[in-house]
Amino acid sequence: TLLHWIEQHFATATNNTVQPATGLRITITAGPTREPLDPVRYLSNHSSGKMGYALAAAAAELGAEVHLISGPVQLAVPAGVQCLPVTTAEEMLQACEARRNQTDLFIACAAVADYRAEQVAEHKIKKQSGQDAMTLTLVKNPDILAQMATGSPRPFCVGFAAETQNVEGYAQDKLLRKNLDAIVANDVSDPGIGFGSDDNRVTLLLRKGEHTEIRPLPQNSKQQLARQLLLELLTFYKEQQQP
Amino acid sequence: TLLHWIEQHFATATNNTVQPATGLRITITAGPTREPLDPVRYLSNHSSGKMGYALAAAAAELGAEVHLISGPVQLAVPAGVQCLPVTTAEEMLQACEARRNQTDLFIACAAVADYRAEQVAEHKIKKQSGQDAMTLTLVKNPDILAQMATGSPRPFCVGFAAETQNVEGYAQDKLLRKNLDAIVANDVSDPGIGFGSDDNRVTLLLRKGEHTEIRPLPQNSKQQLARQLLLELLTFYKEQQQP
Repeated sequence: TLLHWIEQHFATATNNTVQPATGLRITITAGPTREPLDPVRYLSNHSSGKMGYALAAAAAELGAEVHLISGPVQLAVPAGVQCLPVTTAEEMLQACEARRNQTDLFIACAAVADYRAEQVAEHKIKKQSGQDAMTLTLVKNPDILAQMATGSPRPFCVGFAAETQNVEGYAQDKLLRKNLDAIVANDVSDPGIGFGSDDNRVTLLLRKGEHTEIRPLPQNSKQQLARQLLLELLTFYKEQQQP
Repeated sequence: TLLHWIEQHFATATNNTVQPATGLRITITAGPTREPLDPVRYLSNHSSGKMGYALAAAAAELGAEVHLISGPVQLAVPAGVQCLPVTTAEEMLQACEARRNQTDLFIACAAVADYRAEQVAEHKIKKQSGQDAMTLTLVKNPDILAQMATGSPRPFCVGFAAETQNVEGYAQDKLLRKNLDAIVANDVSDPGIGFGSDDNRVTLLLRKGEHTEIRPLPQNSKQQLARQLLLELLTFYKEQQQP
């Protein structure tokens, strides 16, 4: 409706006045990665990319210069966002490293495949008629987020932990083990939220020295949640920057 | 444009007069299957489902009663087509078997995963920090097309062979080994055609007793090709039905 448009216009205008992310360069990864087994088969996961795209849109609206490094998804690139499409974890790592020097905040929202095939067959692997089972040897993919949090210059690093059990426990472990500044914990076992869903409910864990602050956020649309998350993260980032 | 609409209307009206598939019940499988490894990861392949959906649309336009059994794709169900969505090969097999008694022609266009994980983990498999490789044991999925071509009542069975090398050789082998009536051979190594593409170029192999007739079809949009393929298949089907 026209009224809705007018409201949106003024809402945006107000945001433009605030612009809490002006001057910040935010790099966000989103979507799944796809790891080929041969020219037709691949390993992947159920990430829709919606959360990462919502974060990119919100970051751009908040005034940041946003680069989105995205695995294969069915989503439109948000206005004001530079998007670089990639397929595999290895390609995503190269793209992130290429942006390291121009990244103040790095938000790793992609569901990167932990493993890829040790060998990618050049031609389609034929089904063997005598053979009822086959073993696939997988090797570990690079840990993009841990690598970004280790190298130099080190951006402010935010991870996501999508889990189906002991969600906060695994998230806290990941926060410390990968040397992150913050992590967003997400229970994907709940079918109403998480992968593919438009809604999400997450818990934000902020690392404050030896202490971890745990801040549950209310369930919301991925759009609203993305904005809220970014505002929390920007506040924390600015606190950390102070000497 | 209005002219286009009017032309389409009369084109459709003409087809309605011909209706070469009236009274025939055609079941078509389409898209990939997804085989879960755990609640978030899966094995799949690059099938877009476009060819199967185009066949379903063309079959409905030609007057058939069409059931489309579809793996996860990003496509709209064509007008006049009943669609049953499935995820895994096992689910697709059950859906096909459930339609066996009401199927005159069975067209297996889906890119069914040959293998699935031997065990599907109930919770997300954790990356083991000490472990750089992992082996995944895969077991063979049911061969839906071979099973449909073996059981009773046996529909007229059409397969697809998507290959990257020795395309006609593998197709002919599959035609005989799986006891099919016809097979559509498709070279997916050519990036301009095949998986994900809107165009396709295929070779139709028809089994005529001891002899196999090989009929290359010209490259065309998947829509045009689907119609052409169905007309060829319907002609062959009707020949076979004659005593």
